[in-house]
Amino acid sequence: MSRPLVRISVTTAAPAEGYEIVIGPGVRGQLPSLVERRCAAHRYAVITDDHVERLYGAWLLRAMRAAGHRADVFAFPYGEARKSRETWSAVTDAMLESEMGRDSAVVALGGGVVGDLAGFVAATYMRGLPVVQVPTTLLAMIDASVGGKTGVNTPAGKNLVGAFWPPRLVIIDPELVATLPAAHRRAGLAEAVKHAAIADADHLRRIAETSSELLEAEPDVLCEIITRSIEIKSEIVSSDEREAGPRRALNFGHTVAHALEAAVGYRMLHGEAVAIGMVTEARIGERSGVTVAGTAAALRDVLRALGLPVSMPKDVSAGRILELARGDKKAREGRTEFVLLRAVGEVHPNGGRWSHTVPDEAVLSVLEETT
Amino acid sequence: MSRPLVRISVTTAAPAEGYEIVIGPGVRGQLPSLVERRCAAHRYAVITDDHVERLYGAWLLRAMRAAGHRADVFAFPYGEARKSRETWSAVTDAMLESEMGRDSAVVALGGGVVGDLAGFVAATYMRGLPVVQVPTTLLAMIDASVGGKTGVNTPAGKNLVGAFWPPRLVIIDPELVATLPAAHRRAGLAEAVKHAAIADADHLRRIAETSSELLEAEPDVLCEIITRSIEIKSEIVSSDEREAGPRRALNFGHTVAHALEAAVGYRMLHGEAVAIGMVTEARIGERSGVTVAGTAAALRDVLRALGLPVSMPKDVSAGRILELARGDKKAREGRTEFVLLRAVGEVHPNGGRWSHTVPDEAVLSVLEETT
Repeated sequence: MSRPLVRISVTTAAPAEGYEIVIGPGVRGQLPSLVERRCAAHRYAVITDDHVERLYGAWLLRAMRAAGHRADVFAFPYGEARKSRETWSAVTDAMLESEMGRDSAVVALGGGVVGDLAGFVAATYMRGLPVVQVPTTLLAMIDASVGGKTGVNTPAGKNLVGAFWPPRLVIIDPELVATLPAAHRRAGLAEAVKHAAIADADHLRRIAETSSELLEAEPDVLCEIITRSIEIKSEIVSSDEREAGPRRALNFGHTVAHALEAAVGYRMLHGEAVAIGMVTEARIGERSGVTVAGTAAALRDVLRALGLPVSMPKDVSAGRILELARGDKKAREGRTEFVLLRAVGEVHPNGGRWSHTVPDEAVLSVLEETT
Repeated sequence: MSRPLVRISVTTAAPAEGYEIVIGPGVRGQLPSLVERRCAAHRYAVITDDHVERLYGAWLLRAMRAAGHRADVFAFPYGEARKSRETWSAVTDAMLESEMGRDSAVVALGGGVVGDLAGFVAATYMRGLPVVQVPTTLLAMIDASVGGKTGVNTPAGKNLVGAFWPPRLVIIDPELVATLPAAHRRAGLAEAVKHAAIADADHLRRIAETSSELLEAEPDVLCEIITRSIEIKSEIVSSDEREAGPRRALNFGHTVAHALEAAVGYRMLHGEAVAIGMVTEARIGERSGVTVAGTAAALRDVLRALGLPVSMPKDVSAGRILELARGDKKAREGRTEFVLLRAVGEVHPNGGRWSHTVPDEAVLSVLEETT
């Protein structure tokens, strides 16, 4: 090229605000004033599913309106199958139909599916509305409301379309957990155990000590455990918002869990699969000489005390799990990638990769023992 | 509330990188090496429409592959009607089908529709892939490749779904303009006139002086005019990425233009509507005493020299334009919002609002004169 090029640099305005998570038994009563302070808007779209709408929809509308906010509910049918581009389009169109403008905000009221879908609506409506996350399940409180991941599933797989769209505010009221079925409460605790396993042995001891109160949804104990779990997750996420490094540690237990969920056609709660996945991956780590002996047993004891399953269902073959685990994006030829612990409370960093490639034979031999 | 609340602050990692726009006749020859330096990726999805694919698809694939890049083309049918959620889904699914992972990048090759749609695919594919914008129309070079706006239309209106997703790199080769129909070249220049009108009287003089070279698509003159226009736009956009303040100035001429496009069922090029809109809004400003006398005439002369229309089509009524302009989000009762100039090269800031509310009678009387 003989002619000189012109180069223009454009700086992009970085909206580097953080956000706040407010946790407390009964804090839902302060929702309208918290929303007003942290996320003032001309109108609010409360996005939820029809199950949660029946439980809390009328209450939330009344509370918002009593505080002088203009709020409308947009509810879609309950279930993971509705976390789709079709539901996203339908909710967006309903908001457009009701003439919500750019000066609106979204309140996501529900479990993980609602948080992900409502977050993606907010991320893309007129190029982005602020969103307040109000999780109503233990799993969403502990895990899904932190990190800014939003998205929907496509026929090709889960969460393949989405955006990083951090909330403006997260409001967590552990009293809402009381209306959850017991199995869902147990499953939510699996992610708390995961946070303990990867970052804080004391947290694991505390979960073990308080397991009966947790299973009874005692609000103050729930508040303590949720708070510590969120602290752990938000430290990790703050250091690595786009999953380039340490955030990978949050995948502990999940390579096996995702394979298991697929193998049983998703007829198992995510937390149950994660419980089995953590014990299995801890054993894989022990077998590989990466994880200290006794780690899998320590996790298994706590998970059992919480009433969670810790071994593979009898009708799922080891070969099938390996095949599905290798189909995972992280797989390489003849070897599969796993996040491995060094011990309870500590992930093995493996020189900054935060995962290990394990030969198929080693994985199979562990899977054959545990199924 | 007697029980204390727990508050956790989460910091969000701000990807505060800017990006570079590289402009030069023939710079397309350096595309593979520029992409490698600024946007290294395992695989590249070249997203384009079938018109541009016929002109440049084979060339781009050959060049990328010759440089050792893995690249595949994803083309959708030409036209504004295809800037839809359906096309977005179809392109996304085709990329998933071909197993493009998170370590991929998007190259958006085409006009404004391609840039907006491919940008939105990039913003949402696995929660975001980097994108390189390679505009092939003068309008996209001057206007659409800066600012980070991406999105699609819905049945309720244009650009109602989308994301702010700044490119990693913009590559502008004015030689590509040679394959455009003359009417499209003229229409593209309307946005250059707009940048001059709102920010730089010297730029307007230079456009006037070089109008015949511009109409002949002389690459060095095009390069000069495109460069200055982009400088103006990127200064405005850098200071106000999310349209809270000065960025509104870029709407000069557009309240009337959008109404006019709707009135004629979009059977008019956007730049043609903007040309008429600028002259009309300059007259509205003069009538309101905000804009110095002679401004509308100065804009009209340059636009005429570029072969652009400067008055309303005979079959469009003033009342219909006003009605459509008031349907615009910016409208208030009995009055309509306009960005008004103080003079050529300067928007009237109106105390930081960057727009004025004008009574309907004043708007109507101008529209009745100019139709």
